[in-house]
Parts: sequence; structure tokens; C-alpha cells
Amino acid sequence: MIILKPDTTEDQVQLVVARVRELGLTPHVSRGKERIVIGVVGEARRVEPGVFRHLPGVDDVVPISRPYKLTSREFHPENTLVRVGPVTFGGTDIVIIAGPCSVESRSQLLETAHAVKEAGAQMLRGGAFKPRTSPYSFQGLGEKGLEYLAEAREVTGLPVVTEVMAPEQVPLVARYADMLQIGARNMQNYPLLKAAGRMGKPILLKRGMGATVTEWLLAAEYILSEGNWQVVMCERGIRTFETSTRNTTDINAIPVLKRATHLPVILDPSHSTGHWEYVTPIARAAIAAGADGLIVEVHPRPEEALSDGGQSLKPERFAQMVREVRAIAQIVREVQAALVPAGGGPNGR
Amino acid sequence: MIILKPDTTEDQVQLVVARVRELGLTPHVSRGKERIVIGVVGEARRVEPGVFRHLPGVDDVVPISRPYKLTSREFHPENTLVRVGPVTFGGTDIVIIAGPCSVESRSQLLETAHAVKEAGAQMLRGGAFKPRTSPYSFQGLGEKGLEYLAEAREVTGLPVVTEVMAPEQVPLVARYADMLQIGARNMQNYPLLKAAGRMGKPILLKRGMGATVTEWLLAAEYILSEGNWQVVMCERGIRTFETSTRNTTDINAIPVLKRATHLPVILDPSHSTGHWEYVTPIARAAIAAGADGLIVEVHPRPEEALSDGGQSLKPERFAQMVREVRAIAQIVREVQAALVPAGGGPNGR
Amino acid sequence: MIILKPDTTEDQVQLVVARVRELGLTPHVSRGKERIVIGVVGEARRVEPGVFRHLPGVDDVVPISRPYKLTSREFHPENTLVRVGPVTFGGTDIVIIAGPCSVESRSQLLETAHAVKEAGAQMLRGGAFKPRTSPYSFQGLGEKGLEYLAEAREVTGLPVVTEVMAPEQVPLVARYADMLQIGARNMQNYPLLKAAGRMGKPILLKRGMGATVTEWLLAAEYILSEGNWQVVMCERGIRTFETSTRNTTDINAIPVLKRATHLPVILDPSHSTGHWEYVTPIARAAIAAGADGLIVEVHPRPEEALSDGGQSLKPERFAQMVREVRAIAQIVREVQAALVPAGGGPNGR
Amino acid sequence: MIILKPDTTEDQVQLVVARVRELGLTPHVSRGKERIVIGVVGEARRVEPGVFRHLPGVDDVVPISRPYKLTSREFHPENTLVRVGPVTFGGTDIVIIAGPCSVESRSQLLETAHAVKEAGAQMLRGGAFKPRTSPYSFQGLGEKGLEYLAEAREVTGLPVVTEVMAPEQVPLVARYADMLQIGARNMQNYPLLKAAGRMGKPILLKRGMGATVTEWLLAAEYILSEGNWQVVMCERGIRTFETSTRNTTDINAIPVLKRATHLPVILDPSHSTGHWEYVTPIARAAIAAGADGLIVEVHPRPEEALSDGGQSLKPERFAQMVREVRAIAQIVREVQAALVPAGGGPNGR
Repeated sequence: MIILKPDTTEDQVQLVVARVRELGLTPHVSRGKERIVIGVVGEARRVEPGVFRHLPGVDDVVPISRPYKLTSREFHPENTLVRVGPVTFGGTDIVIIAGPCSVESRSQLLETAHAVKEAGAQMLRGGAFKPRTSPYSFQGLGEKGLEYLAEAREVTGLPVVTEVMAPEQVPLVARYADMLQIGARNMQNYPLLKAAGRMGKPILLKRGMGATVTEWLLAAEYILSEGNWQVVMCERGIRTFETSTRNTTDINAIPVLKRATHLPVILDPSHSTGHWEYVTPIARAAIAAGADGLIVEVHPRPEEALSDGGQSLKPERFAQMVREVRAIAQIVREVQAALVPAGGGPNGR
Repeated sequence: MIILKPDTTEDQVQLVVARVRELGLTPHVSRGKERIVIGVVGEARRVEPGVFRHLPGVDDVVPISRPYKLTSREFHPENTLVRVGPVTFGGTDIVIIAGPCSVESRSQLLETAHAVKEAGAQMLRGGAFKPRTSPYSFQGLGEKGLEYLAEAREVTGLPVVTEVMAPEQVPLVARYADMLQIGARNMQNYPLLKAAGRMGKPILLKRGMGATVTEWLLAAEYILSEGNWQVVMCERGIRTFETSTRNTTDINAIPVLKRATHLPVILDPSHSTGHWEYVTPIARAAIAAGADGLIVEVHPRPEEALSDGGQSLKPERFAQMVREVRAIAQIVREVQAALVPAGGGPNGR
Repeated sequence: MIILKPDTTEDQVQLVVARVRELGLTPHVSRGKERIVIGVVGEARRVEPGVFRHLPGVDDVVPISRPYKLTSREFHPENTLVRVGPVTFGGTDIVIIAGPCSVESRSQLLETAHAVKEAGAQMLRGGAFKPRTSPYSFQGLGEKGLEYLAEAREVTGLPVVTEVMAPEQVPLVARYADMLQIGARNMQNYPLLKAAGRMGKPILLKRGMGATVTEWLLAAEYILSEGNWQVVMCERGIRTFETSTRNTTDINAIPVLKRATHLPVILDPSHSTGHWEYVTPIARAAIAAGADGLIVEVHPRPEEALSDGGQSLKPERFAQMVREVRAIAQIVREVQAALVPAGGGPNGR
Repeated sequence: MIILKPDTTEDQVQLVVARVRELGLTPHVSRGKERIVIGVVGEARRVEPGVFRHLPGVDDVVPISRPYKLTSREFHPENTLVRVGPVTFGGTDIVIIAGPCSVESRSQLLETAHAVKEAGAQMLRGGAFKPRTSPYSFQGLGEKGLEYLAEAREVTGLPVVTEVMAPEQVPLVARYADMLQIGARNMQNYPLLKAAGRMGKPILLKRGMGATVTEWLLAAEYILSEGNWQVVMCERGIRTFETSTRNTTDINAIPVLKRATHLPVILDPSHSTGHWEYVTPIARAAIAAGADGLIVEVHPRPEEALSDGGQSLKPERFAQMVREVRAIAQIVREVQAALVPAGGGPNGR
């Protein structure tokens, strides 16, 4: 949609119209009392709005169509189910992933894995390669950590998700993990998105802390356009002016995504709040809002954790959280089921 | 907490210490390897951190103590119950307020009031004086709107909350309304906070869209310090970079406030999302997070509304929302009850 | 601009078209490969976009035209000159306003007034009624402060600007002050904007810390639509996630406003940074970006100030700042003068 | 700094004290009327604040010391000079880098390179590997683009900076470029920071759009801790709620960085505004605020650009911008020189 200045001449209008045609698009001119607006129709997704901004008479350019395609619910109305071993994201049951922020030692990981399994988690998380804001912070155990994760999977049966930080790490991490996590800081690391996409394993795509929902869906589009549709979106809080929590949980993003895309959506209440006291209420909120699952940091002794201890739950608190969110998931499932005969949409509305 | 520069001289340290004493406070000097830090103890709430910032050697000043007092849970550990006629905020039951954005006509209001009552609302909302971003938008019916609200209360029995925009309007609005709303744009309108506080009626205090939780609690402190403790806090979304919704619902604010203050907390999912499709999931999320209630915009024919039609629910959708949130409230109540013997805190954690 | 869903039926299109006509507007339907878009032409400023959002088939509504009118440069291409006694905002010379955050005593104010005059300030600022975030902070001297300001004007000849916080204070403050300041917290206090607008005195309108440029211009529109065009816009920093400064100076807002409106624009580097060390560089930046002036906090002994000491300049530093910004203003004036023959726009671009 | 709850018992205090000692740090207990605060002294940079948050009685943990070290001006008070061929960043002269957003063809690049050289640019920019938000946008010419850049350097003598997107691209890009750019989306791509740091070439480190100044300095710390101190910091706008520009130029970041670090700081007014009309005023502002240089997008025919045409300057407008910013740089240099005898700090304050 190209908006012209009030004093644009007819010659200038024709110039813009010609340029639109030159790019293989169709112009529709609307002449109002105050301004002329030119609607641009066609494969506008491939054209930069900026190309029109320098033409004489052009005041503003407003993109209308969604820039993503494969990820959109318009393109694929049914929920995509993402399967990781015996676990399914996007179906009628919620999925709870839990584990330590970092894999710190074999014993810490195995102890936590057993505890979260007993508490009701269906998948295990744990960082082996850790992207840390400071070079002086613990950077993870690397491949040793991956081995411990594989061992924990053997003994508990829980599939494992862990972060991959660079394209050349993808094959290594994929050898051990059941699902690859792209972290918030790497949401727009396109070589990594492509490399992970080509690997064919399911991917957990965290939202960048300064990224809009549209940019996040475009990051997913990078993976889908490599032929891999097994992508789970994970909200983990955004940057705002509020300082009483580490990030601001964008709870709106859950129904927004359920409407915009067919991909499953989960929430990470540990990072989105940054304080263990708020993890359980926000986990409940996410499920109530329609999320397909949660990823939660659990540590047997948070006060000894090498990273993010302040936002980790102890196993017994996590077990209580699981009971609460499953009860809420049951309610949401019931209300959605009740709505189906009335023709309810993807989110039970 | 005053942090000195690494190369501060002993004379400069003594100067800061002397200035702290002069203000009636007690200094505690900690000498580290890299820096000296001076803790300041006493009624620091009354002192500007800036007074130290110009002293030689001072690098930074970090306030530690909470600047609010009466509103804090430390000061008053028990939940405050706010009573508006037969309705109680902050107790075991959630409170649902509903009604049109603006009172547009007698028939529109009465129709809506009956509909929301039937659907399960316990209070009626409706704007008579409307703070509109543009001077060309509908500005409300004024006193005529207040009369219609009073009539709607008569016929339905629902207590009424409506916004007051200026100190001199307070007596007029208080004559008709059961609860006075201070809107987001006026959260830091201190003459209004004081005038409303002195009136003695219960107050619904909306959060400013650019206000931190601390500033919001300090706005409440203005009302409490006038002797009026009947204040309900209402989250209504904050300003962030995300544009897929009108505002970003700060769902974290609910457990943060439940921990920080004894005042009841409710959420306005209509303004915090700006799209009717997202109102119900976010209403569920708020109750799941521990909110004490909701305030929701309902309009019998949203496509004809003079304001905010895009975010208003139709009565039948609202009725469905009420059923869903009450089912979730029941779950939250049960888990909190189950926790009490184990010494659960204010938010069931 | 109404965007329809991909699967909208022809009947739904006609329904939307009919609704647009019903509101006295003209619809233009553009049929693209992927979607239909309906342009709406006419006095769209008076219609809520939300009224279309509930119609079947409507996916989104994107407003195109600017919602403000009198304040726009389109409506009035020439710079508006705002005159306060001998001082003119919006002309070829920049205007520097300086003084203490709060009027604390007669001697403090007179000493500061003399100092800032000598350093080159053309107007005096000072708060008598202070909107403070905390009820426990110093709230200003009230009318006594206004008397001191009037006395300072007598002895220095500097016109005075001071804040007015409530509609009923307007006549009192207008009796003493040459220009009325509407503070950031009151930018959307519409009864105050109208009352101040009707008074006929020049107005300094600060931007709200969570307000967009468009909302700020609409706040000015409230004043202009009362018949008072003597309005100066004052950027004072916005709320963002960055915490190394008190606020984030939105320097972009200066050229944005110079293009969007004919009203003068100044910057408050004291509030927009919150640290005296950053005031001078940001003052230089504002003038370099094309601002028409500055408002700066100056205190003879910042370490004793009752408010905002940490961001106040001492008189000698302020004098240095004045020299620097005047040298930069001279450069900007010269480059703009050099551009005029080449048909330079309002901001010398 | 560990803040305890008001009702903490003496046993709990001793537990925290013991834990602090266990981590090799020294505790300083300050007992106030309302609370106890424990200052922690030592190599706190290596300890997670979260480790204390789970201890009984702990209310909050506030980090005091700066988490970065090598990049801090405390550690290295003198300005670091970064040399790229004949060009020096951080000295008395500003450095202007210019060129197209993307290298689109040999002729486009050579034409632009000649034009920007003639207009006064000292370095050439141009993207060969482009990180694009959408997978459907032009992704750059890759190695072919690098070859054109090398050729443009040969014929103009301008050193070249271009972006590197993945660790495995570093050797390739370093073969052609004189300076490696780490883009905003990769600011926290730590494998890339390390790989680029080890290469030993000068690095242009753009700020992430959601990154705080502290996180940005920590990203630089990753590079410096690989032994490479040749790093130039580049502000390019942050994400805020304001939508009238593409990003919000954080002009405050310039004096903040000049005080916090010894590294040179430049600004990218093309990305920080997103509109060519605002580039020149914001370029002037950056230099006035004390920036060491600029990086600006220039395109001979912006309306044909394959990326970012809307924010590119035409060569003649760029030439005018260079004249304006050099005149302002001259003023800033003079005022800083005049201040030196008076003991001016790093930024002439």
C-alpha cells in the first residue's frame, strides 16, 4: 500500500504506477479527498517496500500482506503435530520439558532426570553448549555434556532437547539429541537455522528477546523452507522497560501464534520471569492461554547451580507445578471440545 | 548503596560519609579489592539518590529499599479485601466486571447490563467521561451517562464502576458510581489520586502503559496515604515493541503484585490485547496466574460501537468466557487450599 | 484500509462495502491473488477502525491517514513561531531555558536565575507544583514558589515557565507564569490540556514517557483545537529496556516532528539522560539534529538539591554547554541557509 | 549486594554469610532499621547472583560491579585507536564509512565506491553475505560480492568492511575484507565472536536491537578476551514502542560508551532511523554527541536497490551530509581541546 503526499502531481502518480508494473505487480489507485493511495497486488512478498520510498510524491509505504507463507495457518489450516520419540507437540495433550539450565555433572543430570520424570515431565532439557552473556560465566561441558544427556535418556526413556549454537555443531549435537534447540540469541542466525533445518530433526525455536512475532515466524520460515516442518515455537519473554522480572512474558503471543500459524507453541516460564517464585503461576497462565506445553528449569539444589539458579524450581515444587498445569490443561481441553460442534477455530474461540 | 570509583581518595570517602550522616542516615563502608561501597541505612525513602551523585568519587547510586510502604505486603501481610456493595475483591472468589467501553445510549447500556448480569458478571463498567487519544473521537455522554449507569444499577443490582478524569469531577462521579476508576493515562495524575483518595470510595487503579510496577504501587501509595485502603490494582497492558497486539499483557505483574502488595489485582484483557479474539485466552491466563478478577468490554453489537468495538466481546462469547474462567478459578482455589497446610504464601506458592 | 481473509465470500465483501458506505465513506475494492483489500476514503479520522473488525471476513484494519490535522505541516506548511515575551521559539535562533528542577527557596531561585542569565539562558524554569512519583518526596512550594518565580523574572528579565498539574490550578499558575508547562505524566490529561489551551498562554507540552509521536501530536491537537496555537513540543526521553540512563532520548523524534508538524520542538537533556555527565553531549546532539531549543536543569549546589540533583548542571558547566550548543546552532543555521536556494524543506534536508 | 527480608532470623543471616565465604568472597553485613543488607566483595564477576536467591531469608540480589573488565575505561583509561589501513578510529578525526546496503553488481559497487570516495568517505561498506529477516529477500552475492569489494578497494584505495555471518565464513571474508562486521542479529553469537576475535582483523561490532549497553560491552569482551583489542562499537538503533522510525537511535549510548569504555564508538543513522530523510540530522547529532564516526548507506539509485533503498542516501545528499558532519566535528574538537587544560575527561566534559 503506497500512500502519496497530498500535493502529488498526476505525473508523479503515473511514475509510481509504472514502477509497480515494472516489478511485475498490479497497482490499484484510490483517489480520496485528502490523498491518493495505491494498492499493490501480486507477489509483494518478494519486493522491498523501500524501493517505492524514494519516488517523488511518495509519503509512506505500508506492507499489508503477511511476509511469511509456509508457517501461516492460511497456508496450512490444520495443526502441525511435531513428534519427538513418543512425545507429540500440538495434539490434545500438553508436553512438559524439564531439566537443569546447564549440564554440570553426570550425577547432577541423572539425579535431575529421574526427579523430573517422576514428577511427570515427558522430555529432558539441559545445556551442553551454553551461550553466556559474559565470557567469564560457565560455558557448558560441551560434548561431555551431550554424552551425559544421552545416558540420561537411556536410563529414563525421556527424549532430550539441547541447544546448538553454530552451524558446524549441528551434526555433533544431532548425534546425541532428539530435538535441537535454537536459542533466543540465535533466532536470527540464519546459517544456523538453515543448517539445523537441513538436519531433519525436530527443532525448538526460541523467540529472540527483541524480536516481533512476525520476525519469529520468518525465522521459522527459514527452517520450513529447508523442508523441515517439525518446528515448535517457544516464547521465553521479551525485553521491555519493566525491571521487576528478568523479561516480560508475552502471554499474548500464545493466542496470536495459535491463530497465525499451525506450528505448536510452548512457553518457558523460567526465562520469561527469571524468578522461581513466579514460574508456577506463569506456567499455569500459559496453559490456560492455550499453549501446547512448557519448558521449565529444575535443579535439585538451585543454590549450587552454575547458571540460572535463581529461576530454577526444586523437584518437589516442579511436581506441584505439573499437577496444577495438568488440571488447567484438562479444563482448556474440555472447553475446546465443547466448542467444536459450534464450529470453534484453532484456539477454541 | 553508594558505589565509589576505583581511584577514590580517603578524603573523598570521608566527604561522602559526612554527607550521609548530615542527612540523618547511617553509613556502612565496605572496602573491596576493586571498589569501595557505602551502604546507607535509615529512612532512605525520603532522600533523593541524586544528592550523592555529584560528590567527588561517587560512581553510581543504587536504591535498595522499596520506595512504597503502606501498599507493601511487608507492612500488611494479610490480603486487603475491597468491598463494593455485595462484591468483595481479594477474597476466595474472583470478581468479573463487564460492560461497554462507553455508555452510548440508555438502551445500549440497559441491554448490555442485563446481558452481562445474565452471563455472570458481578459488576457493571461503562465510560461516561472518556479520555480519548484524539479530540475528534467520541468523548462520552458525561453526566447523562452517569445517570444511565445509576439506572442500570437499579434494574440489575450490579454495582457500577466508571472513570473519573479530573479532581473537580470526583464529587459528581462519586454521587453516581460505586467505585471510581483512575484510568491508565491518569495513573500519575497526583491531584486526581489525592482527590479520589479523600472521597473514600473504592478505587480501581489502572496501570499506566509506560509505568513500572514500582511506579504503579507508588501511585496506589498516594491513595492509601490519604487514608483510603480500598484500592484494586488493574493491569491493562504495557507499551512494548510488539505490534501484533494493541498492548503487551504483563502477565508477570500478577504474581509480582500478589507478592509485593496486599491489594487485590485484576486484569483487563480487552485493552491488554486490543482484539476480541484474544480476550478469552488471556482472561483464562490471568485467573490461572492468580488474578482476583477481570474487567471486560462487552457490547451487544461491537460493529456499531462508538469506541473500542474491535476488542469488545458479544454477550454470548462473554458468557462462554465466564464459564471458562470460573472453571479455572476453581482449580486455582483448590491448589491453593491444598497448599495452605504446607505453609503456602500469599499466592499459593 | 480493510484487509479481508483469503477465504472471504462475495457476500461478506458486499457487507463490508455496505457498512463503509453507511458511515459516509467511499470504499475502493482491490482484488489480489491472495487477498481482497478495501481502501476507505473520506473523513476517516472520525471513524474507529474497530467498527470493521467484527464484520465477517475482516482480517485486519490498518489506518493510513494521519489522525491529527491542525498540528500537521500538511495543514500549515510554515513554521509556527511561539512568542514568550521577548523570546521566540521556531525562528532562526535556538532558545535555552534553564533553572532548578524545583523552586526550593527564594535565595536558591534568585541565585540560579542570575547564574543562568549570565551564562546565556533566555528563559527561567522552576517547579512550584511538583508531580513526584512518591508521595514521600518533596512536593514543591506551591503558590509561594510561583511568587519567587515572578520575583526572579522581575530582577532578571527572564520569562518564566512552570508546570501546572490540574485544571483548577491553571488560572493561578497563569497569573504568575509566562508559559505553562504540561508535564510528561499529564500529556494525556485531557481536561488539563483543554483548560490550559483555553487560557491562551503559550504552552510547553512534554512528551509522555510511554507515548508515541502520534499520540503526542494528538495531545497538541487538543490544545490547538481550543484555538491556542502557541505550543512548543518538548522531547524528554522515553521508556525502553535500556537502564544505563534514566530514559532513552528519542533523538529521532526531532527530525520526525520537524517534518510532521509546524510547531517548534525542544529537548530536555536533563530528564532524557538522568545523569549530569551526559547532559552536554546530548544537548549538542539535539541542536545538531535540528531542535529549536533546550530546557536544562541547573542548580548552584546539585548535591543539596531536593529533587533531581544527579541530573542538574552546575552554573559553570551550564555556561560551557551554552557556548558549545550555540556554536553548533550556528553551523546548522549556515547549512540550512546554504540549502535554501536548492529548495530545501522545513528541516534543511 | 544481597538484600534480606525484614523478618530474617539470625541463623538465616549466618547461612548466607557462610555461603558467601564458601564461594571465596568476603561478606559485609549492614544492619538497618528495616532490613539487613550483605555486601559481597571479591571476584564477584565469576559468581551467578542466582546462587544466593534460593537461600532462606534472601529477598533480592543486586549486582553492583561492572561485569566486563578488558573493555572498561577503568581497566584501560586511554582511548584505544583502531587502525584499518590508513584509517584510524578513536583519534581526533571522525571516520566516515559509506556504501550500499548490499553489493548488487560490479558496476553498482564501483559506481558507488567512486561516488562515496569523492564525497569524502574514508572507508567502503557493502554486504556480500546478507542476514535477511525473510528467506524470500535477496541474500547477497556471497564470494562474488567479496571479489567486487576487493576490486573496489583496488581502484579507490578505500579499505573495506563487510559482514561475516558464521564462524566458518570468517577465513573467507577475512581474505577479502580489511575489517569484519558482526551484525546486530549476531551480537550474541558467541562462536562467531570468538572466531572473528581469533582472526586478528579489526572488528566492527553492531549492537543487537534488544541488547543493553552492558550486554554489548560483554559481547566486545568476548573478542578482547581472544586477544584482539581492535574493536569499534557501532550503535544502530534499538527496539522500542515508537513506530514512526524503523528503530530508536539510542543517542545516549554514545556518551555512555565514551565514559564506560576505551573503544571507539560510531553510529549507523541509516538503520537507526530507517528513512533517508532523517539520516543527515541524526548523523549530525551523533557527531555532536561525541561519536568517532559514522557508517551510512549510499546508493546511486535507491529506488532500484535490492535492499534498504528507503534508508539510502543518494551520493549528492551524502556529500552534503559529509560537509555538515565535518563542520560539527570541528566544533566538538575545538571545545574538547579548549577543555583539556581544565582537566577534561574522556569526552570533553
